[in-house]
Formats: sequence, structure tokens, C-alpha cells
Amino acid sequence: MQSERFTPLVALELVSDTKEEAITWLLQRIRDKQRNGGAELLVEQLRPGLGVQEKQNPNLFLIGASLQRLLSGAEDLGLFKEFNDGSMRGFTCTNKQNFKDFQGDGDGFLSVAECQYIIKHELDTLRAKDESHVPGHTQAKLYPGKSIIRRLLSKGIMVQMFPLHQKEELKRLTFSWYKKVKLSLQPLGKIQCNYEGQALYFGFLEYFTFALIPMALIGVPYYLFDWDDYDKYVIFAVFNLIWCTVILELWKRFSATLAYRWGTLSRKKAFEEPRPGFHGVLGFNPVTGREEPLYPNAKRQLRVYCVSLPFVLLCLYGSLYVMMIYFQMEGWALSLHDEDPTFWTGVLLFIPSIIYAVVIEVLNLIYRYAAEFLTEWENHRLESSYQNHLILKVLVFNFFNCFASLFYIAFVMQDMVLLRQSLATLLITSQILNQFMEAFLPYWLQRRRNKKMMRRVTKMRTQEDKELPIEEQVRLEADMSTYLGTFDDYLELFLLFGYVSLFSCVYPLAAVLVLLNNITEVYSDAFKMCRVFKRPFSDPASNIGVWQLAFEAMSVIAVVTNCALIGMSPQVKAYFPESDMQLILWTVAIEHGLLAVKFILTFLIPDVPKPIQIQLAKLEFESLEALKKKVNTWGMFSVI
Amino acid sequence: MQSERFTPLVALELVSDTKEEAITWLLQRIRDKQRNGGAELLVEQLRPGLGVQEKQNPNLFLIGASLQRLLSGAEDLGLFKEFNDGSMRGFTCTNKQNFKDFQGDGDGFLSVAECQYIIKHELDTLRAKDESHVPGHTQAKLYPGKSIIRRLLSKGIMVQMFPLHQKEELKRLTFSWYKKVKLSLQPLGKIQCNYEGQALYFGFLEYFTFALIPMALIGVPYYLFDWDDYDKYVIFAVFNLIWCTVILELWKRFSATLAYRWGTLSRKKAFEEPRPGFHGVLGFNPVTGREEPLYPNAKRQLRVYCVSLPFVLLCLYGSLYVMMIYFQMEGWALSLHDEDPTFWTGVLLFIPSIIYAVVIEVLNLIYRYAAEFLTEWENHRLESSYQNHLILKVLVFNFFNCFASLFYIAFVMQDMVLLRQSLATLLITSQILNQFMEAFLPYWLQRRRNKKMMRRVTKMRTQEDKELPIEEQVRLEADMSTYLGTFDDYLELFLLFGYVSLFSCVYPLAAVLVLLNNITEVYSDAFKMCRVFKRPFSDPASNIGVWQLAFEAMSVIAVVTNCALIGMSPQVKAYFPESDMQLILWTVAIEHGLLAVKFILTFLIPDVPKPIQIQLAKLEFESLEALKKKVNTWGMFSVI
Repeated sequence: MQSERFTPLVALELVSDTKEEAITWLLQRIRDKQRNGGAELLVEQLRPGLGVQEKQNPNLFLIGASLQRLLSGAEDLGLFKEFNDGSMRGFTCTNKQNFKDFQGDGDGFLSVAECQYIIKHELDTLRAKDESHVPGHTQAKLYPGKSIIRRLLSKGIMVQMFPLHQKEELKRLTFSWYKKVKLSLQPLGKIQCNYEGQALYFGFLEYFTFALIPMALIGVPYYLFDWDDYDKYVIFAVFNLIWCTVILELWKRFSATLAYRWGTLSRKKAFEEPRPGFHGVLGFNPVTGREEPLYPNAKRQLRVYCVSLPFVLLCLYGSLYVMMIYFQMEGWALSLHDEDPTFWTGVLLFIPSIIYAVVIEVLNLIYRYAAEFLTEWENHRLESSYQNHLILKVLVFNFFNCFASLFYIAFVMQDMVLLRQSLATLLITSQILNQFMEAFLPYWLQRRRNKKMMRRVTKMRTQEDKELPIEEQVRLEADMSTYLGTFDDYLELFLLFGYVSLFSCVYPLAAVLVLLNNITEVYSDAFKMCRVFKRPFSDPASNIGVWQLAFEAMSVIAVVTNCALIGMSPQVKAYFPESDMQLILWTVAIEHGLLAVKFILTFLIPDVPKPIQIQLAKLEFESLEALKKKVNTWGMFSVI
Repeated sequence: MQSERFTPLVALELVSDTKEEAITWLLQRIRDKQRNGGAELLVEQLRPGLGVQEKQNPNLFLIGASLQRLLSGAEDLGLFKEFNDGSMRGFTCTNKQNFKDFQGDGDGFLSVAECQYIIKHELDTLRAKDESHVPGHTQAKLYPGKSIIRRLLSKGIMVQMFPLHQKEELKRLTFSWYKKVKLSLQPLGKIQCNYEGQALYFGFLEYFTFALIPMALIGVPYYLFDWDDYDKYVIFAVFNLIWCTVILELWKRFSATLAYRWGTLSRKKAFEEPRPGFHGVLGFNPVTGREEPLYPNAKRQLRVYCVSLPFVLLCLYGSLYVMMIYFQMEGWALSLHDEDPTFWTGVLLFIPSIIYAVVIEVLNLIYRYAAEFLTEWENHRLESSYQNHLILKVLVFNFFNCFASLFYIAFVMQDMVLLRQSLATLLITSQILNQFMEAFLPYWLQRRRNKKMMRRVTKMRTQEDKELPIEEQVRLEADMSTYLGTFDDYLELFLLFGYVSLFSCVYPLAAVLVLLNNITEVYSDAFKMCRVFKRPFSDPASNIGVWQLAFEAMSVIAVVTNCALIGMSPQVKAYFPESDMQLILWTVAIEHGLLAVKFILTFLIPDVPKPIQIQLAKLEFESLEALKKKVNTWGMFSVI
């Protein structure tokens, strides 16, 4: 197989029993010139590893591209890069010398993550011409315009396609990110270069951690000096209200700043192709006019409202049932302790909460799989729509599952001592479980595989340098677990935000605990990204999307909850000795006022900081002016 | 003065003591070729009228344009017109034959309103070159890039610029619009051709009128059969809640459909120039780089928050004070009636309400002027920002002024009989006053002037045809009152919507009254637009903007109010005989639930109907594809 040397950027794995003709055809299509409908990329088969065993899959391919090809791909995708004047502009090849970091022939101008993103895009948009099926695989039907990679993936011929870690860069990143324990900020710029789509999550994590500091600072004295009187809690609750509104508004601005710097704020999204698993009757897409499977929306709605919705409600009912069992256990433990209080019955008091916390995590996990299955079955055309439906399903259940018992204790039982105890147990147990499940378990599994491979390598070749050769490195990465997106990470932050904003006025230490958790989270997430998982493709996002909405919804619920907690406090009740009705009416009135203020604040604070607004307006203005000039020239031509 | 014959579209009036050199200079700039920085339009001085008196202003000019110029202007502005395939596309001269209504040389392709809008835009963007001031008027400073028309307006050299009514079209429009009493819909398409920006208001008025029908139908039996028991009112209130949420959501979809048909949905707004009255220190606009006055935002904020806000609060307090006086009067009338009830004291019972309604209208009017003055003084750079601040100020006060007494009666006095009586009196009185002030008074004034002119004309020339010559017609129109935008019309609908959505469950006839008012409103507004006011420039809008927000805020308040009214009803109270607290808690819980459902509904119902979404996506996709092709070609060029 002829091939020039190149830096491999992306690896592609086909199943081991792929027909030879399919491989030849695919490689030819990838190498073919763009004008012939190819991707014009460089491909090379990975040489077999050292310990050639039967198990090794020979169909691993490395993909790279010439610099010229990457630059024209960047223009094609409309990547935004920093211009000479400091503003961010869409990259164009004709104008390349005016971009800030473009030196010489442009080597190093695009980050590795960008190069990999470009290659992924080019591969994804590699479309069938007149082939009716993949050569050698008649079951993998094709039609003109169908994305070849997506068909290969959906038919299971392609196992995976993943970007490769760049060892040197990774080393530098890990060092500045999590290797040294430090008080400085995360190297967000560097993270962005390596994990473009995930960088916004790390930005959010860092922002959230800093935002927690004032809450934690106020919370500590409450705990230390055992300020149990409720008037202090009223102040805390009011502070809580302001806090959760303000931080979410400021995050929008901060996020816009980050997205602008990273060039994702005003980048135009390409037309979204159907997701690989989407199926339906072949027809013509009304927007593109291309042939693609169509699935009637009414049928999908039917599935959503008649199957998924009842299922979610059933699960919520189940969660409620489990909660009731917990309260029975709690009551039983309490009665045992009251009967004959010893040290062990004192410990026993905490057992139901711990069991319940574990059960909650297990239920969340099981539900998660069910939700994924259901959402897949709903057959959404777009990945984004799939994600939104999945997030909604999981969010509602997790929210209910985690907070229902706390709401029950707070508002039905009105037992603040039990609330505090439950909150602490839930929070601590779920944090420990999460950290374990998320980073250490996969790492441990990975390490075992890793060691096995290292042993094999050293057995075969008694080389000095411990560096793995590229063949082994790629195979190692291919075996790593796949990073499934920022979903679970955001979900965790969402629940933590809930613990702090909803109930921290009865347990002010919650903010401190979450703050500590966040700090370890930064390290474990960074570690996970660099060492445990396959490198993910970057997925440039201009904001945190539906999560912003989720956090805002939570902050609205927090206003209601906090007002109710304040209204229930004996301190406030003392102001209305003669009538409970007056108290409730006042509480409700103030709550409505606060909600109104919250909405007005959301409306008044601009989502994008002024300097960036000006930059965006400038770009818009320039493009309008350019268009006008062009139009005028054309107009003159048409007159002549 | 040399000039070819043309259809005059726009008239321009300068003050009578304008220097001759200024006039010559202005006309030359208007006539000059575009490549020399002129507007390339046709101008002609209006010949003196028949009865040449001292009072007549000679500086009236008629402006028109060649067809070619108008078409290239339409392309310049990015007007959307219907394409051959039924979709709406940005008009381009090169592609003109593919537009649906383009026949022959394109005569009649653009509506008169569009032509006038194009001319206005060309005049507005006529910019100073190296003149330092308007010739002959040294106080009217100019700098490169300053809009000449705006400077002339702000320095009072130009009195006005207004589009002319097209007699034939107007005749046809008036006939189909309001001359025949009919049950059919308004000719929205025709209205759009004539009053582009105002057509959306008429669309909304019509939509709102139809939306009221179900409410009115349900309301009538309540009134007729005197269903005074509250259980019926609970049903009515629930219906009311659903109604006001649903109609606003559906309006968004309807409005998107209208805007798409009229080509305003996806038209790009040009960069907004500062409003004529805006002043500040000369500097460089950070977006355009052009020289223009700058005014520090901090100073404006200071004016808004330290002067305007306290003023508004003071006015609200004043309104509250007036309300208290009204209640004293009411009490006094009641005591008089109770002492010695006769027919006259019975009538007297209504007098305070009527006086209060008149006072409210007067206060609204005075406040309106104060708000305009203050907002002008706040010195907003953009017309849109000026409008938003003005609308906010006026809305808050009008809402408070109109509804405070009703809220007081409903929730503090809890007197449903008085509430019903006040509501009816307020509604009827304000409707009568409004219709009178809005259409008949200006018409009567106009008619007097009109008659005077007709008398003069017939005196001078004893001609047979009663048609006015163009000279007199233009002068007549110049004397007509200026239509000040749809502000007051929307405000009126907003308040009417408030009466229906907030309190109609205690006075179900409100919907019927508002429905009747709306029907007459259609006629009086149409009449006003065609006969009373100068023709307004069209102001293409893709939606009703901040009013949508205002109506939605009102519907949220309606949910709260209706829930409270339901909670207060004896029928509901009977369900909770033992405790008021339970009742209130339930009411609050249900209210929160309803609000949540409302927000979820708003979120779930797509704002743009599916077919239009597809059309928009198609256009977007095509432009992206076109861009990609261009990029590829360029890329190849740059490689070669």
C-alpha cells in the first residue's frame, strides 16, 4: 500500500471480518480528490503489533491530512480564529496571512483538536455516489448522498473512529492541569486546544467552584458556632436566593466570553445530518432535497407521549415507593434507638440514610440505561433532539429521586433535624460513590489492561526506552473506554447545585462539602480525560445549552423552597402570632415578588458582555457592508 | 428647474426660510449618481397651490425614482419577495425573472409602500462627504458619514418627510377594508401593501378579536341567566387561564406565518443609526468606525435609575392617592344612597366610577407626555432602545393606574359586587373616551381644515371635477396629523386584554364588551389610517416585539389573579371548612403548578409553524452550500 509519512490524527477501526473489497473501496474514497467526491485525506493501515496474536484486529487505519487540506477544511467549516486586530474572524485561505498565529506555512496554526475535528467532518460528509451498497456487504445499503461513515457505523462494519492522543502535548497538559497541586486556575486555553467541546464543561466546573466560595465562607461559621437559631437562617436563605440568581446570570456572560475567545460563539452550525441509528422509509428531505430515511413525526410523538411519558411517571412512582420504605426503615431504627440507646443503635440511625443513598445511585444508574433505550427507540432524527429528550428524561427522574425525600422531610414531616442529617448523608455518600464510579473504577480496569500490554511488549522486545511504539499505543487507545460526553458530569453538578441552592439554609455546610467535592472533581475529571478514556472528538459549543435552562429551573425551584423554609421558621412565625393565614399570605406575596425580581434581573443583565457585543456587531456590520458593495457591483453589471 | 415626469412617492418639506444655497445643495445631492455618493433619485419642487397666499410654504418637494433604481434599492435593502417555487427569497436584480410577480420590466412588482420604504432608506443613508455644515446654515454642523436628512431634521431645517397616499389604491383599500360592513376578514394582504409596518398591528387586532369569541360566547349565558353562584365562576376562571396562555402561543405562530408571507421574518436588519435627537461628544463609533456623537452609557444609566425611576415611582404613588380619593367619593355616595335612596342617588352611585375613569384617562395622557420628555432626555442612541424605555415606563404606569383600584376592591375589600360595577364602568367609559379621542376628534379637526381648502379651491377655479389637483392634495396631506406609530393602539389592546384576562371571571360580559369594542376599533383604526393621518412610512417588523412580552407578563399576572379569585370564592372555601390555611396552601400549590404548566407549554409549542421552519432551514442550507462552493473555488484558486 503506497503512502507518504504523515502525523496520524484519527484512527479508524473496522470489524476483523470486513471484506477486502470494502476496505479497498473505503480507502480509495477517503484518498480520492475532492472534485471526485473523495475526502482527499491520507490513510495508512496500522502495522500489526509486536505480539501478533489471533485476537489482534488487523483492520485499524490511521488517518491524517496535508496542511493545505486542513486549512481549506478549516475554511470549509467556518472555523473562527484570532485576527491580527485581536477580533475573532472566520478563517479564509486567501486571507490567511492576516490571522494572528499564522506563521510561515501555517504549521501549528490549527490546534490538534481542530485538525481532528476537521478530519471527522470530512469523513462524516464523505457521501455515497452511485453505489447501491457497500462492496462486499450487500446488507449495508447506500443511496446517493448517504454518509458512508454513518452507514458503516450503523451496520456495525465500522467499530469506531477516534482521535489519537498526542503524547507530547498530553504530557504538558497533564502537568499544568492536575499533576501539580496548586491554587492557580485550570489551563483552560490548553484544555480547549485538546478537548474543544469539553473545555466549556471545565470552564463551568471552575466557575461553579469559585462561585461556591462565598456560600462556603458564610456557611462555615454557622456550623462552627452552632448558630441554631432560625433568624440567622433567614439571612442565609436570602443570601442563597440572590446568590443562585446572580451566579447563573454571570455565568452566561463568562461563557459568552470563553466561547468568543474560542471562536465558537458565532460560528454557523452546518446542517445537521440524521444520527447513525436513525431509521425510516426512504424519502426526500424537504430541506436538502437529498434522499434520506424519513420517519413521521406523529409516530414519534405517539411513542414519546404514550410510552415514554407513562414509563417515566411509573419510574417516579417507583422512586416514591422506595422513599416510603426508607422512611419505614428510618422509623424502625429510631424506635430501636429510643428503646435501648447504645453506641451501636446510634450508628444504626445513619444506616437507613446510607442504604437509601446507595439505592438512589443504583436506581439512577438503572434508569439511565432504560432512558437511553427508550430515547433510542423514539427514533429521533437529530443527535441534538436525541440528547435533549434523554437529558429531560434523566433530569426529571434524578431530580425526583434525589430530592423527593428531602422535600418530604422538609415540608410534610417538617423535621429540620432529620432534614439536616439526611442531607449530609445523601451528599457525602453520593459524592464518594460518584468519584469512585467515575474515575477510579475505570482507571483501575484500564490499568490492568495496560499492564498486560506492557508486559507483552517488554516480553517481545527487550528495549530500553519504556515508550510504547505507535502501533501498540494506538491499540491501547482503541481498547480504552469511550468518553460518553459531558452529560454525566453536568448532571452531577446539577444535583450538587440543587443540594446547595435548595436546602443549604438548613445545612450551611453543604456548600463547603460541594466545594471540596468540586476541587477533587477537577482533578479526577482531568485525570479521566487524559488517562482513562479515549480522546473524544471535540464538539464545539457556544454555550452549555439545555443545562443552562436546567440550572435556571433549579434556581426558580430554589426560590420557592427557600421562601417556604423561611415561612416555616419559628422566628418568622413569631411575627404573626395571631394568624397563620397572614404568615402564609405574606410568604407567598414575598415569594412572588422575588420571582418577579428574578425574572426582571435575568432580563436586565445582558447575556453577552459589552465588548464582545461590539465585536460581534462589528463583524455583522462589515459583512453587511461587504454584501452591499458586492450587490452594487453586480447591480451595475446587470445594468450594463 | 429641469425634471422629467415621474410618480411622486415621497414629499419633503423644508422650513420656508431655508437658504437657497442649502436647497440647491440638497437637491443636487439627492439627484447625484450613487457612485458620487448621491441618492440617484428624482426630485421636483411642488408648484404653488391655487390660492397663492403668504402662508403657503414654497419649499415642498416631491421625490420619486426610476424603476431600475427602485429594484436595485430593493436588493440593497435585502427585501424578501415570493419566488417562483412559492418560497420567500431575498430579491436580487440578476435573478429578478425568477420572482413570482415579476412581469415585463417589473412594473408593479414592488408595492407602493415598499417603494416609499426604499426611498426613505436611500434618503436616510445619504451621507455628508466633506461638508463641514449645511450650506447657508452654519449652525447645522456636518461631518463625513453623518446622515444629512437626520441633521436637517434635528436642526429643524427639515419640517417633515412623508410618503404620499396613492389615491386610486387608497380608494380600493378603503372600500374593501371598512366601507362595507361585512363579516369577512380584513384584507390584510392589501393593508400590508399600503401600511407594511402597521399591517402586523391590524393582524394582531383581528386575531385578538377572533380569539375573544369563545370567551364572549361563554360569558353571555353567565350574564343572561344571572349565574351568580361561584362554582360556575371557577369553571370560567379555569377556562380563562387556558385561554390566555393558548392564544398568546398561537399568535406567535400566526405572526410568524404573516411575517414570512410578508418577507419580514428573516430579513436582516441594517445597522441602526442614532436617532435624530441623539446628542453627545463627537467620537468614533466602535462598530462602524464612523464619526458620530457618543454619549457615555454610565451617564444614561444614571439618568434612568436616579431620575426616571424615582419619577415613575412618584407617579405611581400619585395614582394611588387619586385612587384613595375615589374610594372616599364612592363611600360618600353610598352613604348618601343608604340614607335616602331615590332614583338620583342610585344614579349618583355610578358617578364616582365615571369620574375616576375620566381622571384615569387624563392622568394616562399627562403621564404619557412626561414619559416621552423623560425618555427623550435620557438620550438613547437607538430608536429601538428609546421605544423600549418609553413603552416600559408607560406600560407600568398605565397598568397600575387602570388596575390598582380593581385589585384593591378584589383583594383588600373583597367586594365582588363593587368589583363588577367598577369594572363595567371603567371599561365602558374608557372605551368611549378612547374611540372619541383616537379617531373622531382628529377627524373632525381634519375635516374643518379640509373644507376650508375645498372652499378655496372651488372659489379660485370653478371646475367640474371635485378631484383635488396634486398640488393641493400634497399640501392637504402635509397638514394632516402625523400617525405616531402603533404604540397607543397596542397599549389600548394591552389594557383591554388585561380587563378580560384578569377579572372577566367576576364580570363575564367583559369579553363581550371588548369584542364589540374591537370590531368598532377595526373600523375606526382603518378609517384613521386612510383618512385622518398622513400616510406613515412602513416599518417592517418580524413580530410585535416588546408587546409580546407585555402580553405574556399580563397572562402570568392573570394566572395569579384568577387563582386568588378562585381561592376566595365561597364555593371553594366550602371544601375546606375546618381551616383557611389548608385552602391557601392548596390555592398556592395549584397556582404554582399552573404557572409551571404554562411555562412548559410556552416551551413545548414551537414559535414558528413547521412548514415555515422547513422553508427557513432550506434557505439557510442553500446559502451554506453556496458559500461552500464559493469557498472551494476560491480554495482552488489560491492553491493554483
